[in-house]
Amino acid sequence: MTIRALVFDAYGTLYDVRSVRQRREQLCPRRRPVITQVWRLKQLEYTWLRSLLQQYEDFWEVTRASLDFALRAAGVEPNDAVCGPLMENYLHLDPYPEAREALAALEGRKLAILSNGSPRMLQKLVRNSGLDQWIEAAISIDSVRTYKPHRSCYTLVEPVLGVPKEDVLFVSSNSFDVVGAKAFGFNVAWIRRSGSTDPATMFGMLRGRAEELGHAPDHVVSALTDLPKLL
Amino acid sequence: MTIRALVFDAYGTLYDVRSVRQRREQLCPRRRPVITQVWRLKQLEYTWLRSLLQQYEDFWEVTRASLDFALRAAGVEPNDAVCGPLMENYLHLDPYPEAREALAALEGRKLAILSNGSPRMLQKLVRNSGLDQWIEAAISIDSVRTYKPHRSCYTLVEPVLGVPKEDVLFVSSNSFDVVGAKAFGFNVAWIRRSGSTDPATMFGMLRGRAEELGHAPDHVVSALTDLPKLL
Repeated sequence: MTIRALVFDAYGTLYDVRSVRQRREQLCPRRRPVITQVWRLKQLEYTWLRSLLQQYEDFWEVTRASLDFALRAAGVEPNDAVCGPLMENYLHLDPYPEAREALAALEGRKLAILSNGSPRMLQKLVRNSGLDQWIEAAISIDSVRTYKPHRSCYTLVEPVLGVPKEDVLFVSSNSFDVVGAKAFGFNVAWIRRSGSTDPATMFGMLRGRAEELGHAPDHVVSALTDLPKLL
Repeated sequence: MTIRALVFDAYGTLYDVRSVRQRREQLCPRRRPVITQVWRLKQLEYTWLRSLLQQYEDFWEVTRASLDFALRAAGVEPNDAVCGPLMENYLHLDPYPEAREALAALEGRKLAILSNGSPRMLQKLVRNSGLDQWIEAAISIDSVRTYKPHRSCYTLVEPVLGVPKEDVLFVSSNSFDVVGAKAFGFNVAWIRRSGSTDPATMFGMLRGRAEELGHAPDHVVSALTDLPKLL
């Protein structure tokens, strides 16, 4: 295969969503890990449920609704003073430590993002983190008004990059996204980070593992810096 | 409104899915609650993901795949000796303690089930539990090959019962199902059982609460025996 483009998932793959935890700690110290985890799990559930309901709202709205849910579940009534800074943090997530080195090593190929994030969220995130130095397009699923792993999300890549799916390596650490991308027909690398699957917690049991849905990835690696040697 | 039919969700509404725990305890005592909870959460995730992927498999297959996932997440390699009895249990779930009294009190109206379960699973479950004494139709979403809360699932009621949605009271304890049924246009009662939302566990935080998706139910009650007074 000739890989002409690498297309990355954003949240959890290039960017560490756990980096919202820092500010979370200031607000609700006792319950912070579980609130952050419920927030993330519910955020994903709402993308799937809104897609099935055919009642799309963009990822900013879904992220806020899932935050409201997580806070209420923890007995905290959400308000803008609490939620504003947490939402703002989503525009300033930290890239994983190895992201810049990995992207630099891949220069010369087309590098893009395909994400559930709204166009505004992605634009700010890529600029704020400085990854716009390497990423030539941050493609939002917003235009098809349904979320991953619906097939129509993955069709957005070819018209933007001009590269057919056979020549794309899609990179995600989200196992449902790996399934969707592989079912669509991309070459797929699953970033399976060590420490992402802690069997002592329900969150660690639910996420970061291979799904039992078929469509195994072509490659399984433990960090973004493992990608160049696959090419 | 004139309610001519009551249509019940099965798993978690008429039938207690936690009643699989009993046999679970024999197999893996140390981790049993979390395995049962991961099994249920993943079972729901897989109904949504397979619907979005447009790769339907029936609820028996989804239930087995999610059991495999939950066991692997707990470090147990699934095999038929372990999984067979657990799967079989799904055909012998206990109705909630008040289910028989509630159904008897509703006699005279059309009573039916609309469930994700496969036709075979529902047929056996309703017969094994004796609820076929009151339930005149157990409608499976299998014929539309997509899962709740997709709109097409709820359209199956009228052709079978001959009752338009305005005259149906849909009853579910699953909050995503409440949203789907209400978005479709049913009258909806949400069974919110006390003790279903334990804020000390992630499972209790994720399930049994109102979703932040709009489409609030018409009624919120705490048991099936509260239904007759709504009519």
